[in-house]
Order: sequence, then structure tokens, then C-alpha cells
Amino acid sequence: MNTNRQWLLAKRPFGMVGEENFEYAENPIPEPGEGEVLVRNLYLSFDPTQRGWMEDRESYMPPVQIGEPMRAGSIGQVTESNHPDFNVGDLVQTTGGWQDFFIASPDTGLLGLTRVPEGVPADMMLSVLGVTGLTAYFGLLDLGEPKEGETVLVSGAAGATGSVAGQIARIKGCRVVGIAGGPEKCAWLKDVAKFDDVIDYKNEDVDARIAETCPNKVDVFFDNVGGDILEAALNHINMRARVVLCGGISAYNATEPVPGPVNLMNLVIMRARMEGFIVIDYMDRAQEAITDLLGWIQAGELIYQVDMQEGFENIPATLNRLFTGQNLGKQLLKIADPS
Amino acid sequence: MNTNRQWLLAKRPFGMVGEENFEYAENPIPEPGEGEVLVRNLYLSFDPTQRGWMEDRESYMPPVQIGEPMRAGSIGQVTESNHPDFNVGDLVQTTGGWQDFFIASPDTGLLGLTRVPEGVPADMMLSVLGVTGLTAYFGLLDLGEPKEGETVLVSGAAGATGSVAGQIARIKGCRVVGIAGGPEKCAWLKDVAKFDDVIDYKNEDVDARIAETCPNKVDVFFDNVGGDILEAALNHINMRARVVLCGGISAYNATEPVPGPVNLMNLVIMRARMEGFIVIDYMDRAQEAITDLLGWIQAGELIYQVDMQEGFENIPATLNRLFTGQNLGKQLLKIADPS
Repeated sequence: MNTNRQWLLAKRPFGMVGEENFEYAENPIPEPGEGEVLVRNLYLSFDPTQRGWMEDRESYMPPVQIGEPMRAGSIGQVTESNHPDFNVGDLVQTTGGWQDFFIASPDTGLLGLTRVPEGVPADMMLSVLGVTGLTAYFGLLDLGEPKEGETVLVSGAAGATGSVAGQIARIKGCRVVGIAGGPEKCAWLKDVAKFDDVIDYKNEDVDARIAETCPNKVDVFFDNVGGDILEAALNHINMRARVVLCGGISAYNATEPVPGPVNLMNLVIMRARMEGFIVIDYMDRAQEAITDLLGWIQAGELIYQVDMQEGFENIPATLNRLFTGQNLGKQLLKIADPS
Repeated sequence: MNTNRQWLLAKRPFGMVGEENFEYAENPIPEPGEGEVLVRNLYLSFDPTQRGWMEDRESYMPPVQIGEPMRAGSIGQVTESNHPDFNVGDLVQTTGGWQDFFIASPDTGLLGLTRVPEGVPADMMLSVLGVTGLTAYFGLLDLGEPKEGETVLVSGAAGATGSVAGQIARIKGCRVVGIAGGPEKCAWLKDVAKFDDVIDYKNEDVDARIAETCPNKVDVFFDNVGGDILEAALNHINMRARVVLCGGISAYNATEPVPGPVNLMNLVIMRARMEGFIVIDYMDRAQEAITDLLGWIQAGELIYQVDMQEGFENIPATLNRLFTGQNLGKQLLKIADPS
């Protein structure tokens, strides 16, 4: 291989992202400078937050510029190294983007450049032990502060973050109810991830089902969805409830502003808190989360699921699996196996 | 006087409260039992939260029932006492409601029954040293956590709570910007209450003016209004901002659900918090607030303003002054002078 395949951001999206927002390109493989390494991408991570990176607006990261490779978390393999800490063949994690090759250094990008720990599979590293799992861990524990015996409601519960957040709540002794779309996801949540109860928002009245499944009301709502689901949850919050705003995927592809919940005053009546967070603020505490998460996985208490697509040509289409709800668990794509 | 005049809740309101929601009645003066006192109401407090008490829905207090005197905070005078701690002639504060006479004991009602401290005027006790001032004090300081040099934005800033919250923020070394309706209120905020800047929501573009008057963004938003004002404020929150939900008067008389802000995701991007509270949770710390507030009043740093109406017959109409924005400062009504 002597070209660098790339998917560039061609056009900012209006509404649902489509293939027209990206442009395929082939460029020369770049040369690493002093202190840099050349990495070949093997696995890409797909995350709802990427939709926000495509917009030209102020956010927690600068927007991807038109003509740049689409930004994405990735695991790759070092193919040339001018950095003493990295050797050719090392598996590394970074924000490699939608391309075969890129130049990285420990100071590059969202996550810098870190070596994948020996013996940890790439799919585990990019899901439950990666940004996704850490988002669930710190969002639930630091903002949600669940206490044993409390009720934790999770939206987007079959997603990569929601499923981990809910299982951590269960491990911490809470009653856990998940909201997900369709019988397949709901069955997985109950039978495999061992949620106490589930609500199928595609086939059930969410508001009525929250009342049924959360008889002691909702102490922590871990929200990935926003919109009507957030409003329904706010109808059932308990005194001093914590609403953890992790994401709001229901509005990410909207073409018009999506109104917020009509019942924010329930936060006043119930003395409740709604709080947002971004996981990159917690990266200095990553090891704490990884140690716990790995321990729970090894003890069989925490199940994670990966939806692994394949093929460089399928990258743009794979992003939309997140927004159509096709993915069950963490959405990844394999470009190539390690050499 | 040998009858007890009352304004009873006759009909639950739909939209703006009107005189048709209340019914005038005359009933016998009740007799205090063992451990009780008979109080004659002298001053009534009017508070936006009374609108919520008229609705038949779960809240932080049970609804006022049809046929009951309308609930209201009040200061009155003991006219008969069967309780060793209270003597005839004592001025007392409680939740006496819209009536001349009522039976009270230290365990009665929202605030129990407490003696008005010697030398404190009734209008001060029912405003800046009462529930209103305590709401401002604990909401701003406990939830808002303003730090010196930060920017604090207050909506409903010329109201009884907002004006105190903003001045406390100024005393704590913050830049304070108030949002109020009309040039008279705005002039009072700048010239008398010494806010750093003001926004007249009736005559200015609130979103643009927040950007202008809060060049370092908004660290604390103390919100009494909700709706569009809350949405505009969320556009300008700083990193780790605190949004203190004190009230949402913009929606209290709405006949249809009022959508929430379209930009709740700014709470995520800015890692910000939105939190509600009810002042009755802080009543065991009232003395701490009263000591500070009285100190600031005596030092000339904290100004309070009272809008005192008069006459039992004007009680229902006076409530609506809060919702039409006619009041400047704390809305009270004098039924009678102490004997």
C-alpha cells in the first residue's frame, strides 16, 4: 500500500448525515518528523458526538474543517517511529480519523497517543475500556452519585455508553431500568446485561412505563437521548434526583431547533439537578475507571457488546448506524488486521 | 369586628388568575384550642409560587382545596393565646392565608408560627428577611456558588427575590447583570440596587444584550423566569456554569405546556449544572441568612423595595400584579395596622 486512503469532510450536514457529506481521496502517505510516529489505522470508533464535530459551531472541540479527514477515535499500529517511547509494530490508541495513515505524537489530538495495554483486545479498548466506557463510568458515578437501593433509569440503554452505565448502576446495588428501541435490544438488556426492567420506546408509552417500572421514582436519570424521553423521565424524578446529561441523540440530526422539556420546573419542585459533562475532563483519572471496569468484566458482572463493521468503503455508512439505531452495542469498523 | 372575612379558592385557574377564581365569604371567628393562638392578619405576602398552589397537582406543598381560604404568608397579631410562648399583642409570622383571623400553633403551616423580632418592621420581615430574601440568599450562595470576579446574571431582577440575589452577588464581588421589564425597573436596578448592567427584556434583544453585558460569559444564572429568557441565558453560559432554577414565572399562567429551551446540550458542552430548590428546605439555617442580610441592610449595601397595597377587598387583584409585572419589589398588602 503506498497511498493514504481518506474520507474527507466535503459538506456540512443539514439533517441526517449522508454519503454526500464526505469525499473519498487518495493522498501520499505522510512522513513522520522528529518525535513523531507514523500510524496505520486498524479500527475506527463511531460515536454520536462525531455528528457535532461536523457542525461549524463552538463546542468542546473545534469543528472538523471542510477538506480535512473526518475526526474519529482509532486504534492503529506504528509503522515508522521517530519517538523513543514507540516501536514499529506497537498497537496505539489515538484520534486517527477516517484514513489509513496519519502522523501522531503523544501530544496529538483528543486522546494523545497511548499504547494499547498488552493482552487487551482492540475492540475492548475502543469500547468498554475506552472513551465510551469512561463516559459511562464518570458520568454515572461522579455526576449521578447512585446510592445502593436507588433507582437508575438509562436512555439509549442498549448503546455502548448506556449499557455500561446501567450495568455499573446494577453493580452498585441500584434498581436499573433501561429505555431502548425494539424487542431485540430490550431482550439483550434484560437477559444478558441483567437490567431489572426495560422500556421499548418504539412500542410502549414511555411515560406510563417509567411509572410502572420505577415505583419508587427515578433517583438518577442517565440520558443519552434528550427530547421526549427526557421530558418523560422528568415527570418521574424523585426528590434530589440527578439527571446526567450525557448526550441528546434525538436532536443531533434535526433540521430545526428541538424544544426542550416542558416540565423543567419539576427540577425545582423535586430539588433536582441536571448536569452535563465531557469525558475528556476525566482523562487524568482514566486508570481508576479502567481498573474497575476490567475487574467487573473479569468477574463476569459487566458485559459489553461490539458491532464490528468492516471495510474502508463502508466508513461513512457506518456512522449513520448510530442515528438509525441499527447498532447494538459499541459501533466499530475494522479497516485491517494488525500485521 | 365579629366576623372573619375570607377569600376562598372558588375555581382552579386556567391561564391568568382572575377574580372569578376566588369567592368572598364571611364566617365566624374561630376559637383557639389548647396550645393554639388566634391571630389577626395584618400584612399578606404575595409570591409567584402561590399560582402553583392553586393547581390540583403534585408539588412541594399540597394544593389549596376548593372552598378553603387561599394560602399566603402573613404577619399578624395574637388576639387570644392558649400557648405559653405567645402573648396577646405579639406580632407573629406564619401562613395565615387570605382571611382576617386564623388559628395557629408553632407546628402549623409552611413556616410554623414565629415571633417577629423586636424592632424589625413587618415589611422587612415579609420581604428581605422573610422567605423571599432567604430564597435569594440560599439559592444564590448554596446552589450558585458565586466566586469573586465571576459574572452573575439574574432574571426577574427587579422582583423581590431577584433584586436581593443580584445585590448579594455584587456584595460577593461579582459582576452582576439584571434582566427586567421596562425602563423604570431597569433604572432602579442600576441607580439604586447598583447592578453593573441591566437588560430591558421588553425593549431589547435579550440574547444580544447578554453577549454585550457579559463579555466573560455567565458563570451563574439565577432564573426566576424560564422560557425564552432561560434559553437566551444558556447560549452564553461559561464553562462549569451554575443555573439556579428559582422559578419560571413566564409559564405560570400558560394555558398550554411551554416548551423548554432548545439548547440544553449547552449544559453538556459547557459542563454546566442546572438545579432547582425550595427555600423551605433551608429553614433550619434561616438565622445565618437573616444575620447576613440584616448586616448588609444596616451597612447600606443591600436595598429592598416593597410594593404595599391596601384593603381586604383588593387581595385577589393584588396577586395578579406579580404576573403582569406591575410590582416593583416585594408585593405586600396591608389589611390593618397593629392595635
